[in-house]
This record gives sequence, C-alpha cells and structure tokens, in this order.
Amino acid sequence: MTETIAHSSAWEWLGFRLVDEAEGMATVEMTSREQMANQAGFLHGGLISTLADSAMGRSLRTIKPEVRRAASFDLKLSFIASARIGETLRATGKVVHVGRRTCVTECRVEGDRGRLIATASGTFMVSREKQQTDAD
Amino acid sequence: MTETIAHSSAWEWLGFRLVDEAEGMATVEMTSREQMANQAGFLHGGLISTLADSAMGRSLRTIKPEVRRAASFDLKLSFIASARIGETLRATGKVVHVGRRTCVTECRVEGDRGRLIATASGTFMVSREKQQTDAD
Amino acid sequence: MTETIAHSSAWEWLGFRLVDEAEGMATVEMTSREQMANQAGFLHGGLISTLADSAMGRSLRTIKPEVRRAASFDLKLSFIASARIGETLRATGKVVHVGRRTCVTECRVEGDRGRLIATASGTFMVSREKQQTDAD
Amino acid sequence: MTETIAHSSAWEWLGFRLVDEAEGMATVEMTSREQMANQAGFLHGGLISTLADSAMGRSLRTIKPEVRRAASFDLKLSFIASARIGETLRATGKVVHVGRRTCVTECRVEGDRGRLIATASGTFMVSREKQQTDAD
Repeated sequence: MTETIAHSSAWEWLGFRLVDEAEGMATVEMTSREQMANQAGFLHGGLISTLADSAMGRSLRTIKPEVRRAASFDLKLSFIASARIGETLRATGKVVHVGRRTCVTECRVEGDRGRLIATASGTFMVSREKQQTDAD
Repeated sequence: MTETIAHSSAWEWLGFRLVDEAEGMATVEMTSREQMANQAGFLHGGLISTLADSAMGRSLRTIKPEVRRAASFDLKLSFIASARIGETLRATGKVVHVGRRTCVTECRVEGDRGRLIATASGTFMVSREKQQTDAD
Repeated sequence: MTETIAHSSAWEWLGFRLVDEAEGMATVEMTSREQMANQAGFLHGGLISTLADSAMGRSLRTIKPEVRRAASFDLKLSFIASARIGETLRATGKVVHVGRRTCVTECRVEGDRGRLIATASGTFMVSREKQQTDAD
Repeated sequence: MTETIAHSSAWEWLGFRLVDEAEGMATVEMTSREQMANQAGFLHGGLISTLADSAMGRSLRTIKPEVRRAASFDLKLSFIASARIGETLRATGKVVHVGRRTCVTECRVEGDRGRLIATASGTFMVSREKQQTDAD
C-alpha cells in the first residue's frame, strides 16, 4: 500500500515518512532540520502539530470501507517537551471512533528514546468508498 | 522592535512575515507554496496551525513587562475552509489573558478577500523580563 | 422566541437563564450555588463548561434557516480564573461559521464586574429546517 | 484513601462516585437523571465534560509526591455518542505527563456495555506536597 499511494508534496518537503501502519493506526516519522527551528532553537511547535495531523489523517486510510478523503476540522495539541533540532520524531495516530461522516483520532508524538513530546486529538470529516447508510 | 528581533529559522523557511502589531496583538502572513500541498492539493492544515501558533506567540511579545520566552503547551484549531496553493493567509493573534506564568491567546486566520480559514486558541507558558510576584 | 421554546430540564435544574440574544449570539447566565462547589470551594469547572456549551448551542438557534437540532461534538475550554460560590456567571456564545452540517462557535464567560472566567470554542453538528444543498 | 478524602459538594450533588483508582488513574461513575436532560432528551454534554474533568482531576491525586491542589485550565472534549437518561457513565482518567507545575491527562467516557460516549484531554495546574526543584 505504501508504494501505491503517492505521498503529498508537503510530506516530501517536510521529510515525513510512513514507517508503520495497521488497521486503525499509522506511524509517521520526521527528523527535524535547522530551518525548522523556532527562536529558542527548538523545533517549531507548529511542525509537531503538522506531523500529528498527518499521522492521524494517515491512520484513517487504513479503515474499511476505504476513506477517499479525510480533512481535519478540529485539532488539539498538548505540547509536553521541546524537540531538539536533529531529533527524530515518531507520531502514532490511532482511530478512536468511526462515524458515517466524522471520525475521531488521537496521537502520541515521541522523540529519541521514546520520550513524550506531545499528545494530540483530531476530528476529521471523511468521505468513503461506499457510503454507509446508518446514522453517524 | 521588529527590526531588532531576529526572525527564527522556521519563519524564514516557511515565508512568515510580521505585517502588523500593537499592544496585545500581532498579524503574521504567509503565501502558500506548491510544496506545502496535501494530497487533496490544498495547503496542509498543519501549516495553518503553524501560522496560527506563530501569530499567537508573536502577540505575546507585545505585552509589558517584556516576555523573554513564550512556549505554547496547548493549541486548538478549528479548520473552517481549505486554503488554496498561492493564497495569502493572514493570521491575527490576540492576547486574551496575561497571568504570571501562563497566557491565553486566540487567533483568526483569513485567506483572500478576508474569508475565514480557521480559528485557534493557545495557552502559553511565559517567562518575563521582570517576574511579577502576584499569583497567577 | 424565548417564550415559545421550552427550556430543557438541565437548564432548569442548573438555574440557567437566557438573558440576551440576537442573530448569531446568545447570553446565558447562572448563579453558582453551594452544591456546585469543588473541593477547593470554588465552582466546579465542569459546570462552567456546561454553561459555555449551553450558550454556544443557544446562539445557533438564532440563525436562519432555523436549526432544529444542534449537538456539540468538539468542545474546548480555557479556564482563566476561579468562580466563587454565589457569583453570577454570564456566558456569551457567538456563531463564527455556519456550514451545511457543522457550525463553529466561540464563547466568553464572565463573572462579577466582567472579570474573565473562561473562554471556549465548540463545533456543533446541526440539522436545519431547510437543508441547504451546497457543500459544507 | 477513598474513605479519608471528603468528596466535594459537586460530586455529591451530581452523584459522582469513585469506583476505581490506581497509580496514575481513576475511574468515576455517574447515573444520569431526568433533570440532567437537554432539549433532545439526552444527557447534557456539559455534564459529560464535568464527569471527565472530575475523573482526570482525581487521577492526579494518585501520583507522588502528593498533589494538594489540581485545577484544570485547558479541557478538550470529543463527544462521540449521546448518553441516555438512566444510563450509567464511567469515566477513566489517566495521567499522561507529570511536570513540576503542570500535568497532562486524558480520559475515556463509556456508557452501558462499554460503548464509547466521549474522549477528553485536560491540562492541570498542580501544587504538590513537596515542590520538586527540576524544571518542568
């Protein structure tokens, strides 16, 4: 599956890579670069939220019937520790709830040696291969 | 003030520019580029959250006593409309509450002709030039 | 309109009262009572979120075409100051965005003499009198 | 421990009961009553957020050194299914991160037969029995 799905421009530009996926979950990694530093010299928090959003959106591609489009419309981040430049971040998104048109996901972002960098949750509007007919 | 504060690497890389500021508010702009597109061909939502986080953090630099460091630890986004590639986004961050160690901010992100792209709120941990002694 | 809409059981039990409304906004008040105190002797934060949720939901009843049902599915609170028992809280909900099936709202909760107690945002799933046909 | 800690007025009034706790987690139950109904006849979402806030706050009482006071200042709810009047809700709060002054928690709220009603996350300001000296 990972070979057949073309990654987005943003994923390539940001250096995001899909490193694991299973039904209802996906793990996406990035290694922070010099140009991603905030004024304090750490990884800009917005890029952590970008990684988390991507991992949660990607986790929705693993459910059946297949999701054709998933767009987050609510995103919440709790930043716990700063991430260093050069550090590899690993975001694991999990599907918490699958409704007819909306899905709820959550995410953990870990840095080197598994230290917790951030947690996130996201609600997505989805359109699926075969529309289900039961109420959300 | 804008001349003396060096912009961060992330701001330069992402093309963020401070276009307005006053006490308790700051407006930051970006023009979305091809490499920022998600799979659906719109601006990746994470970059909208990066812009909002930056505008809210920047708004905290306008309060007195001066904020030396501001780090978001809670960030919430509501995405309302997709942003096109090539569209200029304007995020206006406002300070809602200034406590001793924490500050609450909010943000509106608008696209071309002022259409609403997203709203956001953020809570920041701050350290200030002169520590106040009253409780938060 | 306020006379013809029966208030819910929860509103009566919690002592919520609609004190103002206009297109796109509604203000709901409550006076905190002894039995609403948390262990520290202040108003339980959950009841502040209940008030905010109610004010935001109520603001959606003021838009056209008429909303028949509005159910929050994302709710975010920033608690800024503790509310005392006996204090009257005034929550003003505002409609930020009206989509076909989802609406975004925000809220400010103020206590005596207008001091800021909390801010909130909420996303609601709505069903309306006449379904619009344009995409959300 | 549950015998020696007096429950708050709000807990008694709302019928909240602590049914389980261990290091880093606590489970709090409530059975929804007629007077808690919203206009649609389901449990008011604000009371679900009150239950979640209580379970997350209670989970912080299980960590060492002991927490003397915990006040939520950011609370986020995702409502997934409506809860019926008469249904028993079980909220399990978990500590995700313990900092010097702030803690991050998360929560799942389940109804009858374990169906998922809501998920939540909360950030709390805490004061502890012995102040630690390391940075947050």
